[in-house]
Amino acid sequence: MAGQGASPQREMRRRNLSRVLHAVAEQGPCSRAALATRLGLTRTAVSTLVEELLRGGLLAEEGTTPPGGAGGGPGRPGTALALTDRGPCGLGAEIGVDHLAVCAVDPRGEVRARARLESDGRNSDPVVVLARLRTLVDEVARQARELGLRPVRLAVAVPGLVARGTSTVVRAPNLGWHDTDLAGALAGAGAGAEAEAGVGVGVGASASAGERGLPADGGSTRVKGNSTRAGDRSARAEGSAGRALPLIVDNEANFGALAELWLDSGRVPRDFVHVSAEVGIGAAVVLSGELLRGTRGFAGELGHVPVHPDGPRCVCGGRGCLEQYAGEVALLRAAGLRTDGPRDAALTALSERAAGGDTRTRDALEEAGTALGIALAGTVNLLDPRALVLGGALAPLANWLLPALERELRGRTAAPGVPPALVVSGLGAEGPLLGAAYAAVRLVLDDPLSYQA
Amino acid sequence: MAGQGASPQREMRRRNLSRVLHAVAEQGPCSRAALATRLGLTRTAVSTLVEELLRGGLLAEEGTTPPGGAGGGPGRPGTALALTDRGPCGLGAEIGVDHLAVCAVDPRGEVRARARLESDGRNSDPVVVLARLRTLVDEVARQARELGLRPVRLAVAVPGLVARGTSTVVRAPNLGWHDTDLAGALAGAGAGAEAEAGVGVGVGASASAGERGLPADGGSTRVKGNSTRAGDRSARAEGSAGRALPLIVDNEANFGALAELWLDSGRVPRDFVHVSAEVGIGAAVVLSGELLRGTRGFAGELGHVPVHPDGPRCVCGGRGCLEQYAGEVALLRAAGLRTDGPRDAALTALSERAAGGDTRTRDALEEAGTALGIALAGTVNLLDPRALVLGGALAPLANWLLPALERELRGRTAAPGVPPALVVSGLGAEGPLLGAAYAAVRLVLDDPLSYQA
Repeated sequence: MAGQGASPQREMRRRNLSRVLHAVAEQGPCSRAALATRLGLTRTAVSTLVEELLRGGLLAEEGTTPPGGAGGGPGRPGTALALTDRGPCGLGAEIGVDHLAVCAVDPRGEVRARARLESDGRNSDPVVVLARLRTLVDEVARQARELGLRPVRLAVAVPGLVARGTSTVVRAPNLGWHDTDLAGALAGAGAGAEAEAGVGVGVGASASAGERGLPADGGSTRVKGNSTRAGDRSARAEGSAGRALPLIVDNEANFGALAELWLDSGRVPRDFVHVSAEVGIGAAVVLSGELLRGTRGFAGELGHVPVHPDGPRCVCGGRGCLEQYAGEVALLRAAGLRTDGPRDAALTALSERAAGGDTRTRDALEEAGTALGIALAGTVNLLDPRALVLGGALAPLANWLLPALERELRGRTAAPGVPPALVVSGLGAEGPLLGAAYAAVRLVLDDPLSYQA
Repeated sequence: MAGQGASPQREMRRRNLSRVLHAVAEQGPCSRAALATRLGLTRTAVSTLVEELLRGGLLAEEGTTPPGGAGGGPGRPGTALALTDRGPCGLGAEIGVDHLAVCAVDPRGEVRARARLESDGRNSDPVVVLARLRTLVDEVARQARELGLRPVRLAVAVPGLVARGTSTVVRAPNLGWHDTDLAGALAGAGAGAEAEAGVGVGVGASASAGERGLPADGGSTRVKGNSTRAGDRSARAEGSAGRALPLIVDNEANFGALAELWLDSGRVPRDFVHVSAEVGIGAAVVLSGELLRGTRGFAGELGHVPVHPDGPRCVCGGRGCLEQYAGEVALLRAAGLRTDGPRDAALTALSERAAGGDTRTRDALEEAGTALGIALAGTVNLLDPRALVLGGALAPLANWLLPALERELRGRTAAPGVPPALVVSGLGAEGPLLGAAYAAVRLVLDDPLSYQA
């Protein structure tokens, strides 16, 4: 994560500071002794690192840990170290088909501020939508600052394809957008008065000029590494360097999967396929804790896997894609519900009718579950993942989707033995927004030297 | 690759010896100066490493390189260093549905000895088949020794699912095998008189006892690392330690993809999906030069991706799987050819009729190409690979499969722009056998200290 001129000593320090922060993030408040044991460092080395992180405003001290408590093993009671809740925060934004949402998440993964606006995105003008989004971002950033937090990055989840390492939405059929670069319209969003005064955000005081302009080295939301540089660069090219918050733009399904990995963990292994539905159906493949982005950034288009190759025409140009059977419009239509009204009301009506035993609704959900099962059977045969996670709008409907889905999976997977675990997301439709915001702040844990209190 | 007690110095030496060998493998015969430049090591360091590899019988000197030639840049003419053709060799074996094949490959990737036996494997007794295979392996090992080569490992490609990190064929429907462990039947195969005399093969003289029994750390054929240990261990458990050749067992599609990556390179990028057909249809997913094995080792079952979900019943228990449209039996039947005779004759007849313009044959191939295109469109939507490689029995039929396959791919991939490159394998049906043999010898390049001349 260093500039090319960075010294090995500085790199080692950066790496060890990051290891301390990730260890605290994973195991919660803990003592210096527990950290030393966990990281295989001397108590002295850990104390030095911790002091630097306390001074830098990334760690905070919290009362005392009980002997042997909080992962500490035997030893004297000590001060518990926790991630700060008054330091950096990530701003996450979601461009939905019928709403815009923004939130601020602190390094602990907790939502500290949020705003939402109903906004019809279908065949919308990006200029109008992005201006609205910008207002929301500024509002949430203001709230976050009032809580003592400092926004360090903005990450935007979009229902479409984003070219790898860019901030350009190549195609978002449900918005009617194509080749839309978000960097210009969002340059400076959320930066606030502090940025106006010229204080750099997201670049440490001692960072060399080279660090600001490092070339992209791949995807923008890998769990580890400096892979958001691409977004940083494009956003900075639009704003003036050191003012605008660095920008990350990614597909909502990718952020949804990362949220699952980071924020709903314990329930989800490190190899899984995350299926998320808003109006469209997307997926993300996570292998050994890393998102598979694909050569161009277009992996995970589960919604366009052919289910009945001679079926209805799809927006993608194909026929009989999964979305034609399990997408929201197909599902509402099959259940006899309106598809042109407010989405939340329609989905609530769908759940209520299913819960009430309405046959037509149950049949529609069974057909959707069957189609999901067929597409996922192919996925499992190809990838042999440890788990499948149902997220987004599918999560609350899981009760009625799962029986058919599981039947198809069992009947169509070539490998013997137990098929992958089916997990229903605990984050549901919130996943992409939370994942975006946490991706934005998590980079401070990856590179603590980029943050200056 | 070291035992737990190995010193850092020994590890560094091991790593640098391996880097030298891989550099020579990649760029062909070259000078010490060229190696030093390429590896960023001093001329002296390279000379020391090269001397050790010459003494150890892994490198050989070959005449002189021209000034500036063979990747050397400007400089004096020097002795060209090449991988030995009289040192270690890998034994590869293939259990086909109608044949058994074995070959020996030297570190240069060249086949030095081979044997093949027509042998009907359909619903066969593993004991009988493996006894025949063992005879072939012994014969090829004998030939290899006569050429001054020393077999270091045996790798077996099977048309079925192999549990990750084991030598057990969990299910091979076209052989009628299930839960068949190959280690017992093949223990000692190819080891020869040399092994009888108690000379360890595949373990260096200075290796500690711990190195012989290292636990498995994952898949058995990764490009780098000591990931064949699982096979080693199971084979050694059967034979007596130091006598039997270490054994690797893997799916034929995996070895086919590795052959493409290692032996047909320049044509194939490091992110691709390799489709290979024998009687069944398999695939392997390669990401950043690494094989995706899947949680249980069962990734790549493209043949069982649903194409027409209500289609004919498949051996896997599903319906309308790709194999039901593009598998060999389906293809021959659709073309009006016998499916119970010799495979080679039937496939030759198929090609000849297609070349002669026979309508029924052309239609059968178009239907198979369409089904392949539908299944691969789903694959591309999920994984966004850089290329698709057609291998195995599909390669010689590519002329007649590709038009329909490309049409489906174009029409059904959600992402805009250029779809992945379609590459026809230059190795064809030889791929799995060559990949197995090279996987077996390549481990010496990964860990030169494991080999003793």
